Amino acid sequence: MNESPRRIGFIGTGVMGAPMAGHLIDAGHELTVHTRTKSKAQDLLDRGAAWADSPAEAADGQDVVISIVGTPRDVERTHLGEQGTLSATKPPVVIVDMTTSRPYLAARIAEVAKAKGVGAVDAPVSGGDVGARDATLSIMIGGEDGPVRRVWPILEVMGRQLVHHGPPGAGQHAKMVNQILVATNIVGVCEGLLYAAKAGLDPEKVIESVASGAAGSWSVSNLGPRMIRRDFEPGFFVEHFIKDLEIALDESAQMGLVMPGLALARRLYEEVRAQGHGRKAIHVLLPVLERMSD
Amino acid sequence: MNESPRRIGFIGTGVMGAPMAGHLIDAGHELTVHTRTKSKAQDLLDRGAAWADSPAEAADGQDVVISIVGTPRDVERTHLGEQGTLSATKPPVVIVDMTTSRPYLAARIAEVAKAKGVGAVDAPVSGGDVGARDATLSIMIGGEDGPVRRVWPILEVMGRQLVHHGPPGAGQHAKMVNQILVATNIVGVCEGLLYAAKAGLDPEKVIESVASGAAGSWSVSNLGPRMIRRDFEPGFFVEHFIKDLEIALDESAQMGLVMPGLALARRLYEEVRAQGHGRKAIHVLLPVLERMSD
Repeated sequence: MNESPRRIGFIGTGVMGAPMAGHLIDAGHELTVHTRTKSKAQDLLDRGAAWADSPAEAADGQDVVISIVGTPRDVERTHLGEQGTLSATKPPVVIVDMTTSRPYLAARIAEVAKAKGVGAVDAPVSGGDVGARDATLSIMIGGEDGPVRRVWPILEVMGRQLVHHGPPGAGQHAKMVNQILVATNIVGVCEGLLYAAKAGLDPEKVIESVASGAAGSWSVSNLGPRMIRRDFEPGFFVEHFIKDLEIALDESAQMGLVMPGLALARRLYEEVRAQGHGRKAIHVLLPVLERMSD
Repeated sequence: MNESPRRIGFIGTGVMGAPMAGHLIDAGHELTVHTRTKSKAQDLLDRGAAWADSPAEAADGQDVVISIVGTPRDVERTHLGEQGTLSATKPPVVIVDMTTSRPYLAARIAEVAKAKGVGAVDAPVSGGDVGARDATLSIMIGGEDGPVRRVWPILEVMGRQLVHHGPPGAGQHAKMVNQILVATNIVGVCEGLLYAAKAGLDPEKVIESVASGAAGSWSVSNLGPRMIRRDFEPGFFVEHFIKDLEIALDESAQMGLVMPGLALARRLYEEVRAQGHGRKAIHVLLPVLERMSD
């Protein structure tokens, strides 16, 4: 927090990136932002951020460049593309990708970066839009010690729980574990609350009974009440979640891991998307399971 | 707690029942115990409990009879059998079954009891052997208001979280929700920690990253470290867990509910049992999944 102000390029000012960038401005850092839809950066520009027309421009001569974009393809384009950060005239000292993306891509970016004398850190987050707004994110970090140490005070501005998991890609692997846990658990929370309703129980009382014991989880305590209110507004979109589950399944397959719970969750979420709920919150699985049971 | 001492019959002094009965003695109640293997009641007898040779004898002339036995069949025999509590010469005022058992059986016992002027309460628990020893159980209660009110102060001696869920059977239904949540979540916790290990992460650091966020659960925080230590001592046995999952699946099927996560958990736990782990703790699923991946 006693970190001296840094020149930071920030790429991707969506539902996560915008509040995260805002915290960096509040902490006194000098921001240059780039994002696909300029209007989404307007609030940050009003608060003094400079605008860049491309990732390369956002990266030029910066101490640190942070990205939090959509898909692994977007990550690749942002850092390795023709107009990517690593093609900047004066490359940044460290690039940090906070998108949830493929571990191997994080490792590849780190390799290309290293060849240009640039440090690279993967630092995906957990905690959703609320965590981004409240700066309470859990940040899962991969990268070599030098660059990780360098960006640590900047990451601390955006998160509450920082863990360095290992070399480039390790942050992404840790995030995959996070998503495996979320995915398998949400299936059970939906099934449990469905059962409760069908058995004629008061689901709020059931949550009261189960939440503090061996059946307890963040999902049952936090998403359970929203399911009961039939509030399926995101938060975190089904379609982004499916992207994460696909990465986790691909990685698992490459490591020879059998993941029946994860595979089931993916199948169910493809059904959720097929029913037109891609832009809803992930607990919208509840009414989809409900209809399967009709 | 200012409850006057009661005459209580207590049937089933296993890993759960013995400490629960002990708390009732400590609270000043007058206990008569019966259990299949008398040696398991010796400690309670040493502390002043009387012995009964059958459930009927344990029930005779008591204010309350509590049972916590093995399977629904044991529950049926205990209360409706030839030597069951409801055949006592002087039936008790209220019977309370704390076994995890079939909701419809709880309703049937309540019907038979009512015809004899006896109140019946189903009150299965969550919290395991630790919760039983520390009197911190969550107790899920079904039954008519009168008998439930009558036994409430006695249940308070054994648990911390008491919720009355509805008519006879409602406690059992709430417990099924609890087990659905536990079962589906443990699958994910095992898969997540397997992934972590295979990806070369330090699983303790991963738990640190994920435990307080959307991926957090009692299982990951409490069973996760035990999995890392390869400590699979029960606690709660796989074979009892399978019984619970079978009840939950049967009940779901009768209600027309599709429960893919629960069904998957049951299939996996049958594999766990087939591999000879019926008397291990439920997180022994981890090495079984591990071997599937080899």
